[in-house]
Amino acid sequence: MKTKLQGKVICVALNDKQQLEHMADTFKQQPYKALPTEPVLYFKPHNTWQQGDNSIEWPTHADSLVVGASVAVIMAKQCCRVSESEAMNYVEGFALFHDFSLPETSYYRPDIKGKCIDNSASISAPILKSDVADLAALEVQTSVNGALQRTFPLSQQSRTIEQLINKISHIMTLEKGDVIAVGFAGERVELQPGDQVSSCLGNVLSLENNIEGVEA
Amino acid sequence: MKTKLQGKVICVALNDKQQLEHMADTFKQQPYKALPTEPVLYFKPHNTWQQGDNSIEWPTHADSLVVGASVAVIMAKQCCRVSESEAMNYVEGFALFHDFSLPETSYYRPDIKGKCIDNSASISAPILKSDVADLAALEVQTSVNGALQRTFPLSQQSRTIEQLINKISHIMTLEKGDVIAVGFAGERVELQPGDQVSSCLGNVLSLENNIEGVEA
Repeated sequence: MKTKLQGKVICVALNDKQQLEHMADTFKQQPYKALPTEPVLYFKPHNTWQQGDNSIEWPTHADSLVVGASVAVIMAKQCCRVSESEAMNYVEGFALFHDFSLPETSYYRPDIKGKCIDNSASISAPILKSDVADLAALEVQTSVNGALQRTFPLSQQSRTIEQLINKISHIMTLEKGDVIAVGFAGERVELQPGDQVSSCLGNVLSLENNIEGVEA
Repeated sequence: MKTKLQGKVICVALNDKQQLEHMADTFKQQPYKALPTEPVLYFKPHNTWQQGDNSIEWPTHADSLVVGASVAVIMAKQCCRVSESEAMNYVEGFALFHDFSLPETSYYRPDIKGKCIDNSASISAPILKSDVADLAALEVQTSVNGALQRTFPLSQQSRTIEQLINKISHIMTLEKGDVIAVGFAGERVELQPGDQVSSCLGNVLSLENNIEGVEA
């Protein structure tokens, strides 16, 4: 399976059950007063896209940079308002996805600045959905310079892929080639210039990106 | 000048001086405690794009729909971190832009659901920047069924086009063909099924969209 990024890349925030439990008290305060009832989504626009094991530049003037790894779902065809039970019929395959961003300082404003850094959305070579026997039983592991930093079992996702496709396709039409990064471990991994980030999904997918050092 | 939408469409919210004055008290409360210090941006993804005087469907299950009209800046070439004084060198031309959305119920969550309705970003035929003598002296007028509803002088924009290109190009690289809708009158115009929305920029640009009725 080959894929060329096109269309849109949608990321799902706050899809980690454990993170939602930890944040319950925060969300019960002003202005939300309750946990989110719908998926919290953000876009990674075209300038952020890159495919494969490439480097990304340390952002100018950034004090810190964080990364999250997610399974990316690649849509097979256009769909609008699909049911959970039919959702998988519209999926072509899966990839691994790294979302590099500035650390979030607030949950109260759409974080365009932090999320739209050039080359900050990295996607691995994909596999066909038929090549994965039981995706939900796998976990995404993220390492920095070879040391394991995060383990995120897909069973810890608050919403399943089917539930997300159902919800998102009721908000907007999804097109062939659109990508949904379905969920990240709530706590992102902090990086330094020169770090090497690698992640894997069981033994079926892997992705590696180097953070370029800051030029003196 | 011809343009084909590609790349990204970025909209600038809260760029109406009058609206910001009216909202000053709200923003001084929790959680913001201050007026925004940076441009507030949102994306209109591919499924929202349409060009010219077309119809848009009333969104399924929507109780209401609102529209804002803005000047759209069309980028001529790739640019990154440009100064205000050089910003206009990267602009190819201008168009009119209608942003149809669900009314905002909160300023505290990225409003993906309300902003990403299919066909909700409509852009007029463009003109070259050299065809407009003094853009800042013009105003955008928006009418519904022929009755004038909003007049938004571009001098009422809190940030100029040059300031916005400077700020946005420091957040992300802009590409040839990218579109920035630079500012809307703060108060959007409410619509009903069957309405005809038209807007004009002086006598240089115009755009008209019909809202399709709800099928019984």
